[in-house]
Amino acid sequence: MIETDILIIGAGPTGLFAVFEAGLLQLKCHLIDALGQPGGQCSEIYPKKPIYDIPGFPEILAGELVDNLMEQIKAFEPGFTLGERAETIKKLEDGTFIVTTNKGTRHHAPVVAIAGGLGSFEPRKPLLEDLQKYEDNGVAYLIRDPEVYRDKKVVISGGGDSALDWSIYLADIASQVTLVHRRNEFRGALDSVEKVRSLKEQGKIDLITPAEVIGLQGEKVLESLVIAKSNGHENIVLKADAYIPLFGLSPKLGPIADWGLEIEKNAIKVNNALDYQTNIPGIYAIGDVNTYPGKLKLILCGFHEATLMCQSAYQRIHPDKKYVMKYTTVGGVQGFDGTKKEAPKAVVKAIE
Amino acid sequence: MIETDILIIGAGPTGLFAVFEAGLLQLKCHLIDALGQPGGQCSEIYPKKPIYDIPGFPEILAGELVDNLMEQIKAFEPGFTLGERAETIKKLEDGTFIVTTNKGTRHHAPVVAIAGGLGSFEPRKPLLEDLQKYEDNGVAYLIRDPEVYRDKKVVISGGGDSALDWSIYLADIASQVTLVHRRNEFRGALDSVEKVRSLKEQGKIDLITPAEVIGLQGEKVLESLVIAKSNGHENIVLKADAYIPLFGLSPKLGPIADWGLEIEKNAIKVNNALDYQTNIPGIYAIGDVNTYPGKLKLILCGFHEATLMCQSAYQRIHPDKKYVMKYTTVGGVQGFDGTKKEAPKAVVKAIE
Repeated sequence: MIETDILIIGAGPTGLFAVFEAGLLQLKCHLIDALGQPGGQCSEIYPKKPIYDIPGFPEILAGELVDNLMEQIKAFEPGFTLGERAETIKKLEDGTFIVTTNKGTRHHAPVVAIAGGLGSFEPRKPLLEDLQKYEDNGVAYLIRDPEVYRDKKVVISGGGDSALDWSIYLADIASQVTLVHRRNEFRGALDSVEKVRSLKEQGKIDLITPAEVIGLQGEKVLESLVIAKSNGHENIVLKADAYIPLFGLSPKLGPIADWGLEIEKNAIKVNNALDYQTNIPGIYAIGDVNTYPGKLKLILCGFHEATLMCQSAYQRIHPDKKYVMKYTTVGGVQGFDGTKKEAPKAVVKAIE
Repeated sequence: MIETDILIIGAGPTGLFAVFEAGLLQLKCHLIDALGQPGGQCSEIYPKKPIYDIPGFPEILAGELVDNLMEQIKAFEPGFTLGERAETIKKLEDGTFIVTTNKGTRHHAPVVAIAGGLGSFEPRKPLLEDLQKYEDNGVAYLIRDPEVYRDKKVVISGGGDSALDWSIYLADIASQVTLVHRRNEFRGALDSVEKVRSLKEQGKIDLITPAEVIGLQGEKVLESLVIAKSNGHENIVLKADAYIPLFGLSPKLGPIADWGLEIEKNAIKVNNALDYQTNIPGIYAIGDVNTYPGKLKLILCGFHEATLMCQSAYQRIHPDKKYVMKYTTVGGVQGFDGTKKEAPKAVVKAIE
């Protein structure tokens, strides 16, 4: 059982910044995320896209923002349960909560903050017979650890940035990379398209287009794929250790929708901006996942909501203490890891 | 008469970021600030202090944050009335406002956003006879343009960073710089103290401590100062073209307190976090100057408040239009100066 002060569901920018604000209050956080790495959409969907409306950054890549936030919260030593989806919640008699993931990991905390963005991002799956049989036996929708594919025969499907970028990345790791797409045209960053073209010329990536994977074969694990070319040629049977269809992700509120929270337009209702608490005391909703009059789904609003949430969480966890806010410019930042950051102190000195 | 869409009173971080969010909505802003430069406290009081709780910045100097914000809003061409204090407000029959400064500059706008921080920073003045007579005739509390002091005899009073830093700065401009402080000890950054010591040794700064300026002399303009040394020596009469007492600034809500706004604990009450509107429709209060249940006086909260305010201002200015929010990652940023920033577009391209 993982114990923490604030259990944060969703490790996007809002969830990450909550760790910082909680840390200033000496509260520990643990984050659960269905994706394999922190950062939510910013890492998974558009890490290389510039964002222009983060205050103080005329321009920042989404991936850089996540890196910066990870650096900012490092001293507060957040825990992570990644690649698992928060599935069930149980309120104990003492008012604390137990949250269990789809893989059975249990977390216990007095406060739960849902920072789930648009929901957990589920991969769009191809309609293939026996697909489920091969999941985790050769078929994967996300690449957690590229090393898994070292010296393997890998087939990737898809025509977007993910398919292009992973084909490029795995070209140096896998023994064979085949990219299958139902059109001749790819849609992605110009340099990714050019890179794939060049790797194809070097014989490092095989391209089969326009074509679709229509069958999976193998006794227990994936052994080969059946590929249909759109122009009426005969089907190809291709030996493959791994098949990775990258057809994008679609967000689903998922199991959270069944936790007894008031839901409105696929978002969780919170008390208007007081502390972003839901109808269940002790459960908060911050960032894109919540709704209230005037709500804007912006990262900068999530930062504010996370901050006010932490103040309220502090009161819930320490009902007898009164927290007096200290500015970081004055009090500095005292990490859980023993580090201390603070402004250089003024000296008091006579000039002779 | 200066015409604008949103008249922002206070050019601190919150007021500056409001320009950006307004700009995304194609609304123009003009800012009034009693200080001589944008940035509020961040520029005037602690430009070199690190802030640790701006989301995405593990550490940023207050002055850098202001520079970044100025860069971020540049394309939206904000207007500035600096070094003047918003004094009176008048609501016209059509619901728009005229705000006049202490120097008589008039501004006309359908929306007024007060982003006044802790109030306008007023210099702490020494208790000296005839002080007022010499104000703008040799006595100044802020240095707007250091060139005014070229080849002049300047006396500075004070024992903090401002007194030290301006003495250093003016040492190369003025013909004579004398620093008078009532203690032997100065309180400031170590390198400032050392720099003053070294300039004193080079004869570029005269130091009189422990001492106080006790009198001002001169027919119409300042001609000399009377300085009392604490240790019982005779008073010194020192020729001076300029006297700059730098005893710090203290914030005062000031004339805004008389605008008919609901005030609570020296702050302006706003409707709880819906759009940060005050009891007077069309006047908003954002950032440290406002109060509502759960309020935290943090820069990051001001950013959020500014953003929601702009949405509401848009509705007030364009009651018939419906604004559909576009993410900057998708829609980019279209400046009023003709510039356009946007994410590189994906290409759609066949790989032969």
